[in-house]
Amino acid sequence: MQRTDYPATGAWSPAQPAGRRHFLSFGERAVALDVGATLRDVIVAYETWGTLNADQSNAILICHAWTGDSHVAGAAGEGHPTPGWWEGLVGPGLAIDTDEWFVVCSNVLGGCQGTTGPASLHPDDGAPYGSRFPVITVRDMVRAQVRLADELGVRRWHSVIGGSMGGMQALEWAITYPDRVGSLVAIGTCAQATAQQIAWGSIGRRAIRLDPQWRGGNYYDAAVGKGPWQGLAIARMVAQVTFRSDNAFTERFGRDLADMDAENSGIGLWDKFEVERYLDHHGDRLIRRFDTNSYLLIGKAMDLHDVARGRGGLERAMARITASTLTIGMSSDILYPAYQQRQIRDLVTRNGVRTEMVEIESPHGHDAFLIDLQQVGPPITRWLHAVD
Amino acid sequence: MQRTDYPATGAWSPAQPAGRRHFLSFGERAVALDVGATLRDVIVAYETWGTLNADQSNAILICHAWTGDSHVAGAAGEGHPTPGWWEGLVGPGLAIDTDEWFVVCSNVLGGCQGTTGPASLHPDDGAPYGSRFPVITVRDMVRAQVRLADELGVRRWHSVIGGSMGGMQALEWAITYPDRVGSLVAIGTCAQATAQQIAWGSIGRRAIRLDPQWRGGNYYDAAVGKGPWQGLAIARMVAQVTFRSDNAFTERFGRDLADMDAENSGIGLWDKFEVERYLDHHGDRLIRRFDTNSYLLIGKAMDLHDVARGRGGLERAMARITASTLTIGMSSDILYPAYQQRQIRDLVTRNGVRTEMVEIESPHGHDAFLIDLQQVGPPITRWLHAVD
Repeated sequence: MQRTDYPATGAWSPAQPAGRRHFLSFGERAVALDVGATLRDVIVAYETWGTLNADQSNAILICHAWTGDSHVAGAAGEGHPTPGWWEGLVGPGLAIDTDEWFVVCSNVLGGCQGTTGPASLHPDDGAPYGSRFPVITVRDMVRAQVRLADELGVRRWHSVIGGSMGGMQALEWAITYPDRVGSLVAIGTCAQATAQQIAWGSIGRRAIRLDPQWRGGNYYDAAVGKGPWQGLAIARMVAQVTFRSDNAFTERFGRDLADMDAENSGIGLWDKFEVERYLDHHGDRLIRRFDTNSYLLIGKAMDLHDVARGRGGLERAMARITASTLTIGMSSDILYPAYQQRQIRDLVTRNGVRTEMVEIESPHGHDAFLIDLQQVGPPITRWLHAVD
Repeated sequence: MQRTDYPATGAWSPAQPAGRRHFLSFGERAVALDVGATLRDVIVAYETWGTLNADQSNAILICHAWTGDSHVAGAAGEGHPTPGWWEGLVGPGLAIDTDEWFVVCSNVLGGCQGTTGPASLHPDDGAPYGSRFPVITVRDMVRAQVRLADELGVRRWHSVIGGSMGGMQALEWAITYPDRVGSLVAIGTCAQATAQQIAWGSIGRRAIRLDPQWRGGNYYDAAVGKGPWQGLAIARMVAQVTFRSDNAFTERFGRDLADMDAENSGIGLWDKFEVERYLDHHGDRLIRRFDTNSYLLIGKAMDLHDVARGRGGLERAMARITASTLTIGMSSDILYPAYQQRQIRDLVTRNGVRTEMVEIESPHGHDAFLIDLQQVGPPITRWLHAVD
């Protein structure tokens, strides 16, 4: 009765060919993390588009979400398992026009697309970190980006832009380094993870831990098909449902059965509905391009996200923001409901800086910021030109 | 790093002491199921409150939800692991007044609180059914209840009442046996499971299947602590989050950390937020009183719920309802949103029978029908007296 629904994929391999990406090595300049640990020999993978102008005033940092990477725009290819996640929004003549702006995006600390993460080799013994990799926070991700900005000669970003976890990074940038952020675009994100968001995250973590092939996080020597793909697939299913909306699912899948179990005369316990096949497909895609330990760590970073932590409360933290702030919410987002972006807007408005909230009408839920580019693009373009 | 977060509980034991419950045995009168299989020697556990009057006109059937049972009202005790799930709503002088009404509730087919289910012994060999138990539909649950009604001498229910899966049973009663249902109260339920609901259900199923201790459903000989409690706990977490609301979680738990991992200086990957501890608590409670295979089967029955199946479409199916219909929706219900109860109301209204939709304002999400009794009770009482 029990079937393996996914093709046999191997454990994550830390050996990734480099494409158009650049790599910045921190060497012995260790990164001190929020949890108290330090990381040596950190490498940050990043990509850039356009040209930094003479007075360094046209730099834009784009921050990616959970399973994103530095590949904002461009085709899939060597070193890039997927096409750019904002393909169609960032490029020459597009909403974020790379003929005008110097655009930077880096893979987050703890990630698995070139930046140091749990699949990387520990400098002490040359074996993958695995369970030895420390917990990372959104602030740690920003710490690594600050060094990248210094390296690139960007003293001040014209704008820091991000959706979902990318928006969390943008907020942390604007709060921690107010003099280095001119404007802020925070999309489908929040100032503090809510209990419900934490609950979704914790379910995914448990599913991965339940997978015997996760082996406490030390699975990098597993044979093909013996990595923790089943746990990761379940964790991804949870996320995928929260990323979409009730209506979008109903319109696309209805309640059709995808297949019938040949062993049964009709409806078997493991027969799949169309929506299950869709979730399988997304889980399978993720398994091929993402490391389970990175998924765990980055999810935990989002659950720990709280701009108020150590800053005397939410109001005092948000009062540090001097960047002009555009927030974008999506009407059908059940994961980061629009009230959370309105809260950010309201708190920043008190600082006497320019703010605006745009709410996008979309059936696509949280993922609207990756799908409804014709609605996301224009307010960003306008914001980039409305502020200095 | 990996910890066992739950106390060691045993596999489900089919031997349950009987409390105030009654048992109806079908003996050799096999039940023919939707999937084509038949079940012999079926036993249905049920409870009754009040007295059936001389003309049998005061009988009310209450149908329970996923992890509910026949114990609608009364204390916990022998044979009843929990107090009545509608304690405070059903009883002498209460909203469903047992001085006036003869109230019946039975444990559903496939359940684990006295009615035949996967933990029951197969008549062929005296061993638990386990994976041999067939898939059950909501219509199959109703088939068993029809025999119970006949046994009790109830030709026609004054009303059939249910929330969530209980509402699905109530709808199937009114559609399949229109002459046996006087009125219908359908709370937080739907005419057809949506793709999103199916998606949530499928995630729980996968988590259970991933648990090595589930053993394909044949775990009844497992030692204490060796049953599939980890998979069941994850499945329950998914359900529990969809049962509640964003606001209720935020107000109750905020984003506090429940404990700190002694191994870590601060925030560890497996440190728990308060909301995680709450979900643990619910998972642990369920493990102690519910069989994992029943959880799987009943969840699948809900995903398969579709009053239209085999009836020429949704409109034609709903056109069979002649019972006066009260639907109750809950404003913060993200699992069965209020539009689904409005749809039921709208479809039944076309039949020229009396209908009404009441929407409860509550922060408690789907579970409001079990919590906000002061809001659920009055419309039910009114409906019971408004119709004959």
